[in-house]
Amino acid sequence: MSGKVTPLSGFPEFLPSDRIVELEFLDTIRETFELHGFASVETRAVEPVERLSNQGEDADKEIYGVRRLAAEGEDASLGLHFDLTVPFARYVLEHGGKLAFPFRRYQIQKVWRGERPQEGRYREFTQADIDIVDSGELPNHYEVELPLVIADALRKLPVPEFVIKVNNRKIPEGFYRGLGLDDVTTVLRIVDKIDKIGPEKVVERLVESGATDKQARLAVQLADISSTDTSFVEQVRALGVEHPTLDEGLEQLSQVMAAATEHAPGLLLADLRIARGLDYYTGAVYEIYLVGQEAFGSVGGGGRYDALASDGKTTYPGVGISIGVSRLVHRLISQGLLKGSRSTPTAVLVALNAEEDRAEAMRTAAQLRGRGIPVEVAPAAAKFGKQIKFADRRGIPFVLFSTENGPEIKDIRSGEQVAVDPATWAPPAVDVRPKINTQENS
Amino acid sequence: MSGKVTPLSGFPEFLPSDRIVELEFLDTIRETFELHGFASVETRAVEPVERLSNQGEDADKEIYGVRRLAAEGEDASLGLHFDLTVPFARYVLEHGGKLAFPFRRYQIQKVWRGERPQEGRYREFTQADIDIVDSGELPNHYEVELPLVIADALRKLPVPEFVIKVNNRKIPEGFYRGLGLDDVTTVLRIVDKIDKIGPEKVVERLVESGATDKQARLAVQLADISSTDTSFVEQVRALGVEHPTLDEGLEQLSQVMAAATEHAPGLLLADLRIARGLDYYTGAVYEIYLVGQEAFGSVGGGGRYDALASDGKTTYPGVGISIGVSRLVHRLISQGLLKGSRSTPTAVLVALNAEEDRAEAMRTAAQLRGRGIPVEVAPAAAKFGKQIKFADRRGIPFVLFSTENGPEIKDIRSGEQVAVDPATWAPPAVDVRPKINTQENS
Repeated sequence: MSGKVTPLSGFPEFLPSDRIVELEFLDTIRETFELHGFASVETRAVEPVERLSNQGEDADKEIYGVRRLAAEGEDASLGLHFDLTVPFARYVLEHGGKLAFPFRRYQIQKVWRGERPQEGRYREFTQADIDIVDSGELPNHYEVELPLVIADALRKLPVPEFVIKVNNRKIPEGFYRGLGLDDVTTVLRIVDKIDKIGPEKVVERLVESGATDKQARLAVQLADISSTDTSFVEQVRALGVEHPTLDEGLEQLSQVMAAATEHAPGLLLADLRIARGLDYYTGAVYEIYLVGQEAFGSVGGGGRYDALASDGKTTYPGVGISIGVSRLVHRLISQGLLKGSRSTPTAVLVALNAEEDRAEAMRTAAQLRGRGIPVEVAPAAAKFGKQIKFADRRGIPFVLFSTENGPEIKDIRSGEQVAVDPATWAPPAVDVRPKINTQENS
Repeated sequence: MSGKVTPLSGFPEFLPSDRIVELEFLDTIRETFELHGFASVETRAVEPVERLSNQGEDADKEIYGVRRLAAEGEDASLGLHFDLTVPFARYVLEHGGKLAFPFRRYQIQKVWRGERPQEGRYREFTQADIDIVDSGELPNHYEVELPLVIADALRKLPVPEFVIKVNNRKIPEGFYRGLGLDDVTTVLRIVDKIDKIGPEKVVERLVESGATDKQARLAVQLADISSTDTSFVEQVRALGVEHPTLDEGLEQLSQVMAAATEHAPGLLLADLRIARGLDYYTGAVYEIYLVGQEAFGSVGGGGRYDALASDGKTTYPGVGISIGVSRLVHRLISQGLLKGSRSTPTAVLVALNAEEDRAEAMRTAAQLRGRGIPVEVAPAAAKFGKQIKFADRRGIPFVLFSTENGPEIKDIRSGEQVAVDPATWAPPAVDVRPKINTQENS
């Protein structure tokens, strides 16, 4: 293969040392999800186009159609999934009879969206999702549990301070209905633009859409309410609007905030501005933000959907949250906050005095690997300086030499070289695997 | 989401307990690759179509083109990769200046081929590849090292006896040229069909393509030679054909077989019939077979390519082997040889006496998780029998009850129930994580 290579905008790739950072994120997230009893599911990359394109007004233009080149001219009947929720809903319908409900699943995969690439917005990226889906009814306590699981994962990672903003779709819905604004979807869509266009423009547009000035101002006031505890309830009550759906939403969000305050004070922020774009949410909605970097947008989110999937007989309600792993990792790496401690898993390079020693060096390497130490043998019996440079370029911390006094190990960072027995020696635990260097520890 | 769901042929998905088997395979393979000093690379799923379609006569019809639905009518300029070698070659060209050579990389990803689905042949499947790529020259010893790494991975897994068949492309090439058959590609393609159509038909077709009967019979005789040591050399010499390229190939394959015999006797079989379809191989070629299941086809393979990538100034030779993880895992599961020991990571279910106890149960669960034990809390304070059934359906081995005598743990397999301190108790190590049950241990 030859010729010019042009990078594809929106399809980011990591160099090996940055990939080590991403892998550490993925491993920690997976480990946490498994500790909380979520089972791994992997779905195929493609779904029938009609299943993908039925998910709200903006979804269509994002879909990548897929078809064999040999079938050019035919319409694409398959498309790449643009999230992991739609394929999971299909998976539940397809395999429902063989799953045990409530079903806790995690799914860490690539997704594709044909959006215009920009910072933090990619055409291919990795998401890490957890969902709990039940058959028939889904208990509300899962709305508390899921953000705690996500927080447990993120807190094990070198991620800056974050907050999970939470709302309940029933609050704006009940509030608007109580106000007499029955086209809830239109009102939600206009209010959702408040961060972009400002409150005055939102009032204007609401009035254009048929609201009175008073209704419009109250809708904007609702979106301004937030609290780290359950005090948002009083603030809403003070606006004087009444509706049974509003009561239900306030009660459910109060439960979430009360439980979160008990288990993880400060983690959740009730923020009645949070809406989430997609249509299928019906209860709690979440958005994860890096504190002080709200302008970058959320690094994850999710919510509850009372009818994620239905086959006509059974309805499957669920609640899920997704971490935008690619967005988060690329952001932290590009800010210079994180990098891999080396570009290879190798902890020890076995140096060679002569090519005839390779078989012996391979046996020594195997001995160390048997104790979980990543090792490689030098590519050639070059001068020692060249072999040390080989290790240095990759960040490999140790070089094992065979000297006339027997095997010796050199820590190439300190230059210290000591006699060792390869049958028992191991590097310090911190050096066995590459790790993430943060601004502080690098 | 609702409506009828039709499975897509060629796009297999696992149920959670089978996915546990696949994950264990992927984890073990990755761990082994890292112990041997291979760095992880992940490439985007798409490549420019012209880069994909330039890889040999059969590649074109396999490619899935990709384009935004909003851009219907335009030609697909991107396609899904059909292997991990072509994207890796592009990655080396694109990032070569930032990589350290020789570069050892592993890559475990999905690939897509629009082939007709059949047993063991999928349209979407996972491959695990290792390659060592150098800049300029690549030492021959890597041709020995790579199959040893693959064998190290497979031997840690519950995989039946396997053999890695190896040949060197220079042997048939030099042999045919020595015979006076200079259209090497045509002869290779005909001889490659020997397992399908038999030796007599191969002779016929070679004669049709211009060979004499004697030349054709000698080409077939070469394809019949195999040995577990270096004795294939004498067998070839006995056919009386001479050519410098043949000498080179025999010498290189002898080195591989000699070293393999030293490090892993019986692992490699020199088999001069092995050709591999793709055109870019120029030295060693490998095919991995399950012993006694040769008719299923290979479960992996690879080879050496002297010009994997070139940017005009620098040429990058490499050698690589791929494990067909999906082929292998689906085969072993469908034969009933392997299954997951449970359908969830959860080792302990914390039962609930009453919904009011949930907060306390969540704290207990967090305590256990802190010691690396996967735990979930019961979905509801149902009757104890129902909570035990919940665990049983998923294969969760332990249920933690809060009794009037304090916390007690029940092993639901034996029914034994004993008092425990959740601050210190842990399940036996074998029960902490789900594992693979084989025919023998299940």
